[in-house]
Amino acid sequence: MLEITPNLDDKSRKPLYIQLSDYFKKEITDGNIKSKEKLPPKRMLASYLGLSINTIQAAFDQLCAEGYVESKPRKGLYVKAIEDKIFSKQTDAPKFVENVVKEKKQVKIDFNSGKVDLEHFPYNVWRKLTTESLYTDRSKLFNMGDPQGERCLREVITNYLYESRGVRCTADQIVIGAGTQLLIGFLCVLFGREHTYALENPGFHRTRVVLKDQGVKIRSISLDEDGISVNQLEASDATIVYVTPSHQFPCGMVMPISRRLELLKWAEERAAFIIEDDYDGEFRYKGKPIPSLQGLDTNGTVIYLGTFSKSLIPSLRISYLVLPTTLMKKYQQKLTIYKQTVSRLHQETLFHFMDQGHWQRHLNKMRTLYRKKQFALLEAIKKYLGDQVKVIGEKSGLHILIKVQNGMSEAELIAKAEEMNVKVYPTSIYYEHPNPTNTPEILLGYGGLQQTEIEEGIRLLKEGWNL
Amino acid sequence: MLEITPNLDDKSRKPLYIQLSDYFKKEITDGNIKSKEKLPPKRMLASYLGLSINTIQAAFDQLCAEGYVESKPRKGLYVKAIEDKIFSKQTDAPKFVENVVKEKKQVKIDFNSGKVDLEHFPYNVWRKLTTESLYTDRSKLFNMGDPQGERCLREVITNYLYESRGVRCTADQIVIGAGTQLLIGFLCVLFGREHTYALENPGFHRTRVVLKDQGVKIRSISLDEDGISVNQLEASDATIVYVTPSHQFPCGMVMPISRRLELLKWAEERAAFIIEDDYDGEFRYKGKPIPSLQGLDTNGTVIYLGTFSKSLIPSLRISYLVLPTTLMKKYQQKLTIYKQTVSRLHQETLFHFMDQGHWQRHLNKMRTLYRKKQFALLEAIKKYLGDQVKVIGEKSGLHILIKVQNGMSEAELIAKAEEMNVKVYPTSIYYEHPNPTNTPEILLGYGGLQQTEIEEGIRLLKEGWNL
Repeated sequence: MLEITPNLDDKSRKPLYIQLSDYFKKEITDGNIKSKEKLPPKRMLASYLGLSINTIQAAFDQLCAEGYVESKPRKGLYVKAIEDKIFSKQTDAPKFVENVVKEKKQVKIDFNSGKVDLEHFPYNVWRKLTTESLYTDRSKLFNMGDPQGERCLREVITNYLYESRGVRCTADQIVIGAGTQLLIGFLCVLFGREHTYALENPGFHRTRVVLKDQGVKIRSISLDEDGISVNQLEASDATIVYVTPSHQFPCGMVMPISRRLELLKWAEERAAFIIEDDYDGEFRYKGKPIPSLQGLDTNGTVIYLGTFSKSLIPSLRISYLVLPTTLMKKYQQKLTIYKQTVSRLHQETLFHFMDQGHWQRHLNKMRTLYRKKQFALLEAIKKYLGDQVKVIGEKSGLHILIKVQNGMSEAELIAKAEEMNVKVYPTSIYYEHPNPTNTPEILLGYGGLQQTEIEEGIRLLKEGWNL
Repeated sequence: MLEITPNLDDKSRKPLYIQLSDYFKKEITDGNIKSKEKLPPKRMLASYLGLSINTIQAAFDQLCAEGYVESKPRKGLYVKAIEDKIFSKQTDAPKFVENVVKEKKQVKIDFNSGKVDLEHFPYNVWRKLTTESLYTDRSKLFNMGDPQGERCLREVITNYLYESRGVRCTADQIVIGAGTQLLIGFLCVLFGREHTYALENPGFHRTRVVLKDQGVKIRSISLDEDGISVNQLEASDATIVYVTPSHQFPCGMVMPISRRLELLKWAEERAAFIIEDDYDGEFRYKGKPIPSLQGLDTNGTVIYLGTFSKSLIPSLRISYLVLPTTLMKKYQQKLTIYKQTVSRLHQETLFHFMDQGHWQRHLNKMRTLYRKKQFALLEAIKKYLGDQVKVIGEKSGLHILIKVQNGMSEAELIAKAEEMNVKVYPTSIYYEHPNPTNTPEILLGYGGLQQTEIEEGIRLLKEGWNL
């Protein structure tokens, strides 16, 4: 018979059966109870320890469940054979990782291009619709929905895209997902990895990273004043090109209709595909927005990529693809096994928000607001920074570039701004091979700043940059 | 001078400047206004059409913006050279995709393993916390958060994991993401594509698909009664293994401690990694849950993968990784450029839900409830299906398998069930190479069904299967 001396505490928050099974586990791992030994019969143990049979049974069940002991029919419980040396390590304390994130300096004014104006967001409406969505049929909203995204939402997106962006599609062609990076990953799966992708250089670095991480071949194509060079594209072996024609990221040019048609012709002749990322196409400040490449396409070569991060709430994480009909069959075969990544509650809420016209009203309001903010920014630059600074890409979107000709490098400009508690952003990261001898171009996002902050920020930059 | 005869309607909802620019666009694309022609001066046109200068200016701005015309300084506006033949195609109607999804038969009772019980979910609490979250500081909640996930949520997950699953980690090691498939994609990026992945066979098909789509090498490893065969694993060239030790998917065995230690030893000796998917580890019906592999690991070889889809709300889409400290540096270098995919509002709400103890209460309630449902299922099987059916994997989780020995194939069993309006699921899809001569095993999930539905469903299966 084993020597059983558990130290049981019936005032502990830990149930007695757990205390007892923990005791046995420790005795087994410490080697005090050897493998293949038989445990005492439970009635005997219950009487010996003054515990109920049920407690002993629960402790033994636990030991069986965790594999410390095994039951041999009509014989009783036996300790299983386990390698002792591995057990002895288990009690090591967990190693803690050092916190890799550096302490950040207090930033007063942040020209982050990812931020949007949240002061004017219709919170009350959104809150009301969210709450209403939470009262709709439970099983509908809480169980997994359509992997492609909820149909009602896809339908209102279709209408919006047709009216505002000239995109012609049905709800069947729309695929909702939690962010552009994820959707680009999906496209790599859809196309397969043998394709070569052409990217604007400079271009959106997060897309470049996704494609590199996906292990596909990448070609960098230069820009001219109209956007991506179709001549260079033709000379490359690319069969898929990623572009930002409404507002090139980061340079801000709008691709004219002639270049759009050249690009579409290239795609048609090469049987290639164009990924059109219309990340902030809603915010164009002169005339109606330019129709998308997708709207000009008649050969099913364009994949349109849209997001609600710029135009609604960044942290909602709702983006979408519009696939050409030519790719829909492949989508059904390859990608419907992937579960939808956007919360169904948010899809439902956004559907009502769009369906009831709040979205269009919000967009209109924001367009006016951002125009004013941009005007304030351009005026402040004129006033404070003068002619040592050249503005680039102010036709649309939520950011501009400034070329700063005071002899400082990009890193110096950023560091000097930081000394004034102003955060400005590099553009070198958008180049495949940045050229440090170029006059530095600094990116200023203004969506999330108030007009007074914009002016104050530029005034501080003047100081920091000695202009 | 051009002949200008636009048909303008000042009662139309379309602004006049859009009507005018549309008119010019059509004239240009139809070839009625040739490329390089000069547009009339705006004052003259305004007077001729009886419109304001501003309207003409807006229309011309639009044409410039869209690239149809260009401004030559001190000369006026000229139509740009554009290839006519492409233009002529633009007016084609969009092609509509045929709806590929088949009409589904009305299902009365669905033994879907992805569904959970939503009747007992504390909606009022969740709704209240969601609304409260919507009243917290706007910029905090609506701007993009930490790419790794909100720290407060990562901290309460850490506590939960330690107490309930024996997982030892800090909040720094947790990475939140919108679903397991996405996180497995992340791991492929983290490890690089040169690794060979071992998978349980049969095993979770969605993981298999993700890894195949990521283009990594895959090895299928058989199971024995304790789970994945470590002997076969040793004989393979795999350096990463994906396992479901708490409740093997789909077979349901619980990996005993001895096998866990063998697996850890394999990883240590080969400097390999183990991905431990604990997809429904919360629901174990006897004793305390078995400690996770992660909790037994002292060498930083285990990546723990958890989800709230089974234990909370499937459509929320919140899963998480626990990375070993050995991989944290690589994570910081490679993956923080990926934006967080889970809505910040949901993260905030879930944090409060866990922090206030609702989560633990909900889990306890669900564990009891699912135990009852499983009992009802097993009783019904005993009563109606008798000894021609063998139950497999009933120790934990939200599904069981039944081996049906009435001579029907898997496809027949499913079809016959469907005739009775009962949906049951195949297991052959979880095998790399299904063997059609094996006795078919059918998967029954019961989380989303009521006890009466479970009994009714099994009764209908008896009829359909002639048992």
